[in-house]
Amino acid sequence: MKKHLLSIDDLSVDDIGALFETAAEMHDVQRRAVKKLPALRGRTVINLFFEDSTRTRSSFEIAGKWLSADVINISAKGSSASKGESLRDTVLTVTAMGIDGLVMRHSASGAAHQVAGWLDIPVINAGDGMHEHPTQALLDAYTLQRKLGSLEGRKIAIVGDLTHSRVFRSGVKILTKLGADVTVVAPPTLMPSGIASWSKDAGFATSYDVDSVLPEADAVMMLRVQKERMSGGYFPTAREYTVGYGLTRDRLALLKPDAPILHPGPMNRGLEIAADAADAAQSVVLDQVSSGVAIRMSVLYHLLAGPNEGEAK
Amino acid sequence: MKKHLLSIDDLSVDDIGALFETAAEMHDVQRRAVKKLPALRGRTVINLFFEDSTRTRSSFEIAGKWLSADVINISAKGSSASKGESLRDTVLTVTAMGIDGLVMRHSASGAAHQVAGWLDIPVINAGDGMHEHPTQALLDAYTLQRKLGSLEGRKIAIVGDLTHSRVFRSGVKILTKLGADVTVVAPPTLMPSGIASWSKDAGFATSYDVDSVLPEADAVMMLRVQKERMSGGYFPTAREYTVGYGLTRDRLALLKPDAPILHPGPMNRGLEIAADAADAAQSVVLDQVSSGVAIRMSVLYHLLAGPNEGEAK
Amino acid sequence: MKKHLLSIDDLSVDDIGALFETAAEMHDVQRRAVKKLPALRGRTVINLFFEDSTRTRSSFEIAGKWLSADVINISAKGSSASKGESLRDTVLTVTAMGIDGLVMRHSASGAAHQVAGWLDIPVINAGDGMHEHPTQALLDAYTLQRKLGSLEGRKIAIVGDLTHSRVFRSGVKILTKLGADVTVVAPPTLMPSGIASWSKDAGFATSYDVDSVLPEADAVMMLRVQKERMSGGYFPTAREYTVGYGLTRDRLALLKPDAPILHPGPMNRGLEIAADAADAAQSVVLDQVSSGVAIRMSVLYHLLAGPNEGEAK
Repeated sequence: MKKHLLSIDDLSVDDIGALFETAAEMHDVQRRAVKKLPALRGRTVINLFFEDSTRTRSSFEIAGKWLSADVINISAKGSSASKGESLRDTVLTVTAMGIDGLVMRHSASGAAHQVAGWLDIPVINAGDGMHEHPTQALLDAYTLQRKLGSLEGRKIAIVGDLTHSRVFRSGVKILTKLGADVTVVAPPTLMPSGIASWSKDAGFATSYDVDSVLPEADAVMMLRVQKERMSGGYFPTAREYTVGYGLTRDRLALLKPDAPILHPGPMNRGLEIAADAADAAQSVVLDQVSSGVAIRMSVLYHLLAGPNEGEAK
Repeated sequence: MKKHLLSIDDLSVDDIGALFETAAEMHDVQRRAVKKLPALRGRTVINLFFEDSTRTRSSFEIAGKWLSADVINISAKGSSASKGESLRDTVLTVTAMGIDGLVMRHSASGAAHQVAGWLDIPVINAGDGMHEHPTQALLDAYTLQRKLGSLEGRKIAIVGDLTHSRVFRSGVKILTKLGADVTVVAPPTLMPSGIASWSKDAGFATSYDVDSVLPEADAVMMLRVQKERMSGGYFPTAREYTVGYGLTRDRLALLKPDAPILHPGPMNRGLEIAADAADAAQSVVLDQVSSGVAIRMSVLYHLLAGPNEGEAK
Repeated sequence: MKKHLLSIDDLSVDDIGALFETAAEMHDVQRRAVKKLPALRGRTVINLFFEDSTRTRSSFEIAGKWLSADVINISAKGSSASKGESLRDTVLTVTAMGIDGLVMRHSASGAAHQVAGWLDIPVINAGDGMHEHPTQALLDAYTLQRKLGSLEGRKIAIVGDLTHSRVFRSGVKILTKLGADVTVVAPPTLMPSGIASWSKDAGFATSYDVDSVLPEADAVMMLRVQKERMSGGYFPTAREYTVGYGLTRDRLALLKPDAPILHPGPMNRGLEIAADAADAAQSVVLDQVSSGVAIRMSVLYHLLAGPNEGEAK
């Protein structure tokens, strides 16, 4: 496995298998009354969040603490970054304290890659702009595999605002890598430019017509409408979006009854997903959250534990 | 004891006795140099605060850590709640991570009850709107009992803005339950509507005249003037409030010299309580803070430790 | 050693030596894979920050955790202080919870001294207004001593906005105490009033001419331009400041090639320090950060561990 986790591109199929195997063991820990493994005792992880994300930050914090690491949260609000410090100085300063791993969320695409080039400790990308969110992709694929078994040849639909979604970008990479047959669906104005050649190279399909895709799907991932990322005037209204692309009650009836429904959260109920779909028996939204902690434990374990445990570095 | 602590109504007199007994043991831990019990090792508690409260949050955080729990703080600022997520989705997501207990503060009365109905882990109400604040009531009663012995028949005055006070609502319940003879005092405009029948049913007295109540009191609880909760134009000015209902130096002289003075903090010195009263030998304001940690340790212990300790759930 | 660390004045030369000796041991811990000493297990430290400072707060948090203390962060944002509570009530409340040490940052000069007078637990000043920042001075002197050996007779220049700098005030005290030959340099408008008599009493020199001071210096400490502290219209423009007092590439050439360059961070690259200087081989900016954790571990250890470890207080 590579030193950093910046992109799904960093992971081979074998790496993913190893991460899932460890995650399954961590999942068992999660169900124990005493959720504590000594694996990262004496290691320090910093959650450096330049963008708010309570959900992802808490998931990494819990994952680190259950592995007995010390976890320090640093929010860019009120940090030196807001006093005009450069990104490079901020991360070099943080790591100079003597930490063992950096989990980082940033609004700029590529920020994590840049930071990894400056540091000699593992960097875990917890979301960079519209670019990647590899632990989200891992937890989505892991959740699907627990429900469906092997993803080889399984038809998976990803529906929503593809242009602004790092969940889509990381997700399509891991699912195709694991052999799934992916179709991504968006309104024309939210389909990323250049997707025609990308989808051809990467081997996934695109569609504007959610109603024709859903009946064939073995699973569907709904993306969050990220109002805060919208700019320009080309976005449909909320009502138009729901009518055209929302997982409404009517569209729920199109789905196979056992096809898992995923959503990375937070959900806009009534916008991209109806309450009937969010709360359906086939919804795995909360399994995703639970898998998220297990996957992050697995990632921290693989990148931070290992040969030098207990020894001087 | 019930599974959740949402209201003083959830507690029998025996439950309160058991909580006080454990709190007394925890109080001893607090005085030790090594303040650490293994009782909740491997358990995870989330402090989910939709409303700021440094004091209550820190008290729960310290209580959890001294019991060796992992404590994760989540502030609603910057959380998914501010991105349009429903309360139900927020708490289900938080608990899906695999936590063992939820401490929750919310500005809406009844929020904690609603949340408890959705979860199968213990929920502890750390204040919900103008409704209840049961750990505050427990720590107040515990502080009083340590000073006065049994509260049976003791005359206790609660003075202040009753309408907006959850401290009053929870406090009057626990004190009457423990047999105290409670009189609540407020200006007419800050006396809750319907208090006539409530006080009759619950067995406490009401008064507009603080000067006639204080000389008889065995203890007095001053409530905080919560300017931030005021709405409408019926509230007296600060000066009128102090003259009519503040615990001024003159009124301090009316009190029995050993009658404890309580205030939940933060105090508005010079408004509802004069510096002479806040700093009087009979003031137990800081004992309340210290008791608060002991009571919260006791509550966490009773709700989260117990039979399944160390075993799979 | 005194009970509190409020000012460099509190420390004798022997105290500083003892702190440095422990810091050197802590520095070794920092390089181990398992960074955890049991020294403060069961002790609780509160980081009470009335002013944001991610860098200093994280450094103390890591220092405390590596000594196995429980560390609670309290930010004045959203705290009782913003609800009108007095400073005295805030700190008495916080300490009444039963904590063992208070690390405090405040925007008012002298705040830490005032607070120490109210408490019987150790108070560590983490910066008070324009007054002092003793752990910064300790880490600077410690960094210098590791590079230069004894500071006796060494020529050290401190350059920048002296008027608004607590780093300068604490720094000049410790460096002269350790026998260094200090020259402080600032534009006339940023030279503190009364410095003539102060420098005479304390035995350091002043200068307006950075170009004549740098060639003689064995080390140079650049101060941060704190735009947020500026008031009045007497400050030079950024361009004037850089031309007159910045450590530009040209001035870097004036320095001895092995003279350490210090900066407390966050750096305004291109303003008070050029990138060439910040990234020069002789820059010790990141050593300062690393030393900061070691020094804070040492301070916490000396003030909070000791005779009553493991025993009732």
